[in-house]
Amino acid sequence: MAGPQQELVFAPLGGVGEIGMNLSIYGLGSGNRRQWLVVDVGVSFAAEEHLPGVDLILPDVRYLEAERKNLAGIVITHAHEDHFGALLELWPRLKVPVYATPFTAALLEAKCAGEPGAPEIPVKVIPVGGRFTVGAFDIELVTMAHSIPEANALMIRTPCGTVLHTGDWKIDPTPILGDRTDEAKLRALGEEGCLALIGDSTNSVREGRSPSEADVAKTLTELIKAAKGRVAVTTFASNVARLRAVAEAARAAEREVVVVGRAMDRVAIIGRELGLFGDLPPFRPMDAYGYLPPNKVVALCTGSQGEPRAALSRIAEDQHPEVTLSRGDTVIYSARTIPGNEKAVGRVINGLIDQGIEVITDRTHLVHVSGHPRRAEVEELLSWVKPRIVIPVHGEALHLSEHAKIARKAGVPEVIQCRNGDLVRLAPKAGLIDEVPAGRIYKDGRLLVDAQARTVADRRRLSFAGAVSVALALTEKGELVGDPSYDLLGIPERDRKGDFLHEHVHEAVLSTFESLPRGKRRDPDAVGEAVRRAVRAAVNERWGKKPMCYVHVLTV
Amino acid sequence: MAGPQQELVFAPLGGVGEIGMNLSIYGLGSGNRRQWLVVDVGVSFAAEEHLPGVDLILPDVRYLEAERKNLAGIVITHAHEDHFGALLELWPRLKVPVYATPFTAALLEAKCAGEPGAPEIPVKVIPVGGRFTVGAFDIELVTMAHSIPEANALMIRTPCGTVLHTGDWKIDPTPILGDRTDEAKLRALGEEGCLALIGDSTNSVREGRSPSEADVAKTLTELIKAAKGRVAVTTFASNVARLRAVAEAARAAEREVVVVGRAMDRVAIIGRELGLFGDLPPFRPMDAYGYLPPNKVVALCTGSQGEPRAALSRIAEDQHPEVTLSRGDTVIYSARTIPGNEKAVGRVINGLIDQGIEVITDRTHLVHVSGHPRRAEVEELLSWVKPRIVIPVHGEALHLSEHAKIARKAGVPEVIQCRNGDLVRLAPKAGLIDEVPAGRIYKDGRLLVDAQARTVADRRRLSFAGAVSVALALTEKGELVGDPSYDLLGIPERDRKGDFLHEHVHEAVLSTFESLPRGKRRDPDAVGEAVRRAVRAAVNERWGKKPMCYVHVLTV
Repeated sequence: MAGPQQELVFAPLGGVGEIGMNLSIYGLGSGNRRQWLVVDVGVSFAAEEHLPGVDLILPDVRYLEAERKNLAGIVITHAHEDHFGALLELWPRLKVPVYATPFTAALLEAKCAGEPGAPEIPVKVIPVGGRFTVGAFDIELVTMAHSIPEANALMIRTPCGTVLHTGDWKIDPTPILGDRTDEAKLRALGEEGCLALIGDSTNSVREGRSPSEADVAKTLTELIKAAKGRVAVTTFASNVARLRAVAEAARAAEREVVVVGRAMDRVAIIGRELGLFGDLPPFRPMDAYGYLPPNKVVALCTGSQGEPRAALSRIAEDQHPEVTLSRGDTVIYSARTIPGNEKAVGRVINGLIDQGIEVITDRTHLVHVSGHPRRAEVEELLSWVKPRIVIPVHGEALHLSEHAKIARKAGVPEVIQCRNGDLVRLAPKAGLIDEVPAGRIYKDGRLLVDAQARTVADRRRLSFAGAVSVALALTEKGELVGDPSYDLLGIPERDRKGDFLHEHVHEAVLSTFESLPRGKRRDPDAVGEAVRRAVRAAVNERWGKKPMCYVHVLTV
Repeated sequence: MAGPQQELVFAPLGGVGEIGMNLSIYGLGSGNRRQWLVVDVGVSFAAEEHLPGVDLILPDVRYLEAERKNLAGIVITHAHEDHFGALLELWPRLKVPVYATPFTAALLEAKCAGEPGAPEIPVKVIPVGGRFTVGAFDIELVTMAHSIPEANALMIRTPCGTVLHTGDWKIDPTPILGDRTDEAKLRALGEEGCLALIGDSTNSVREGRSPSEADVAKTLTELIKAAKGRVAVTTFASNVARLRAVAEAARAAEREVVVVGRAMDRVAIIGRELGLFGDLPPFRPMDAYGYLPPNKVVALCTGSQGEPRAALSRIAEDQHPEVTLSRGDTVIYSARTIPGNEKAVGRVINGLIDQGIEVITDRTHLVHVSGHPRRAEVEELLSWVKPRIVIPVHGEALHLSEHAKIARKAGVPEVIQCRNGDLVRLAPKAGLIDEVPAGRIYKDGRLLVDAQARTVADRRRLSFAGAVSVALALTEKGELVGDPSYDLLGIPERDRKGDFLHEHVHEAVLSTFESLPRGKRRDPDAVGEAVRRAVRAAVNERWGKKPMCYVHVLTV
């Protein structure tokens, strides 16, 4: 199959220079005729401050839509939202088979089942460690330890060479759940020859090695055993090893586990089905919380990121119908705070402390570890795999740049730093050869909005300076009929002197209209524009900000 | 003066349960006739995400306005914004003398001079360590080490006992600039007898002791000596010891210092006037940056919090008229990131790294230390002062609660945890006795807006779901004249099917109007309300969000 012209290319359509939204494509072919493999279709969470009202950020897959007939398939490395969270929205635009291991497939199915109108996505389930082909790509899964079951690196064998796409990973000698990172297979790849490693950069600024999940389990057991009142633990629902560690700690402390929150329920059910909880006693239904004595219960809650509608936030505000906490109880944050969520998490924690509840976080206790490799782990992987090329992905500029430095220091012959949309040739002769369209789409309510559209930018402007809406009725001769009408939205009521701003607006509208030459008064657009300018200036003079202004000129 | 009924009370009007906005009051008298002393009048910075368009948060001083004839004066402990930043806005409501040391007074004067329309605030300058009276309060300043020159604790002597109001402080044996924390005076207070300590809780969750400013200076010298290209250092302008450390490091590396940014300029001038820079060579004007060789210059920049218009952000975006950086240059963040600013700082850092600029932060090097006491320092102060009462202030719930625990463990007989607006009697017989009005005011553009007003809440709603403005003209008989008019603000243009949302709005308006009984059509309010509901429902059906809707019904 490999003609002399055959080349292998790689392009990130998301996840490079940003957190989340991982989507990579590999292309095999010659000239502009390529077959494409998609790896991961993730989302990013919009930090409210910059994208008000946006729920999710999705990669723009315009390029793949155009190339749809050449798409061989989509492989999902693992079931974290930043790797598979955009499938429900974007699969209908691509409509090619999706390949995933059992846990990932089960979570995807549960997600679709919980979402009215979700597409029916055909998933081909691949066993852990399995080997399969997608079009011209020969793919073998490599088990990696991470903070979710069944995280896989992909060995992508092509006539041009073999690529290791690491996905998310760490080296954890005691991962609690699932197999350890498959060192033997990775070393064998090093022997076989690895063309390129496309790898996770998240923790490349951190020295040394990550602590193990087993260390966290030990701390959790000590804390839960020592607790006097009720204990609530919050973590990412998908971290099944962590859920299991909490359940084992509860058993050791002779407490029962109650699961609180929709995402947590979903994973609890799937985890049981797939046997991930071993011989642990079943979790108790939420209503058991009410009658179990305080020292006999552990609540496993969603809400580690301060999400206002999640279990822990509602419990903290005493708004949860079944689960309550009070003075002397303990809440353990077994999760890190994702950048952008610090304020929201801080508010929940402060609310809990105000009620006399003990709050334990990873600032003082080892109640969380990251699922990503620190520097020594990155070095170790490179020593196993010995890639000719390294391309750092999955991280902000700082992380990518540190990952690149580690690779150079380790003697990797070619380290390529690229941006989303860069098309990189891996073989023959590596280098940046082109750009493909890349970008972002916002999920705004139920709709998808192009990031370039004005919608969200307008809402940001509204949030800073509000808006004035004016309506006036004119005859065809340009005579004002009745009184103009005003609405001031998000604008202070009075100025420094105590005068109403809407009265200033009223005066500005009337005096502007009267100062217009008679001919212009007949032109609704001219009237509208003059009024708009005058209103903005009048508000700015008193407030120091120019609101948006919309003028309805009705011809009656 | 001290009758048998005399009592001493304390109330925080800000700064308790939150970061910033420090304002405390002490009252001396009997019954409800008290004379008041105000300590600090600080602001808080609004994290954009929750208060869009708000620049500052100020304490609500309604209570002090009502008690104005009983106000003896305002003492400012030091010149950080969270302690004196609300003076320009709030002093006109209080109009009593302000007491401050020379550096604080000079910074306040410079601030007023830079602000058109700023009030003329009468400042009584007190020497460092001075003793003075404000009404019935006998006050002595105690020098404390902190991250700004002339940080003072206040010993407030009254007939009911002596209070130590710590202000912000740490114990730093080598503070670089200014005297060390005045251990002798504090120990003497312990001997004399201290009724109550009202103290800084900021770092009460951190074990041990803060590193010294001198340690930071050492690191800065090493880094600047080792740098090859240009070096830019960003820090809080008011941290004069840090500016001096940078200037000394520059001298050691045979580099010259260029000051960039308005706040930095202001402090550079005041620092020279007050002799705070010792024998250091003068800073160079900004235009020198252009002709000095890269290895001969250090730029001292504002912008450590990612503020978009500050020097470093503009340099990072290559928007600064005189200062540029390029590949191989180094930027040192000699400041912590204030919670809420993580994203903004991250964006600037990533932009710099993208350009190949080396960025050094306190994550990897000791280039910043906090100015607040860690746990061992809090314990040491308590051992010196031996207060009968401790009231933790200056911190979020978590910090206050940890500070209270430290005090209890140290054997302090009474630890009182209170909230903003709580009126605490210190003597005789300590306890919570009443509440006074407290709250927040927003600086929104040039106006002050009550936090309870709808203005900002409305803007938040606009930022999430936009607004629709509708105008229609009716005759007095309730007949529709001409076409209704629509503006959709911050709402997606099309629904999932590709239809325009404004067409759905149009249909909703017309069909609603037509379905109204003839009698109702004559009632503009009824028409407006029916249209409003119909429009919100129509948009919600397609978008999944209900925008605000404003309807102008003009009678023509």
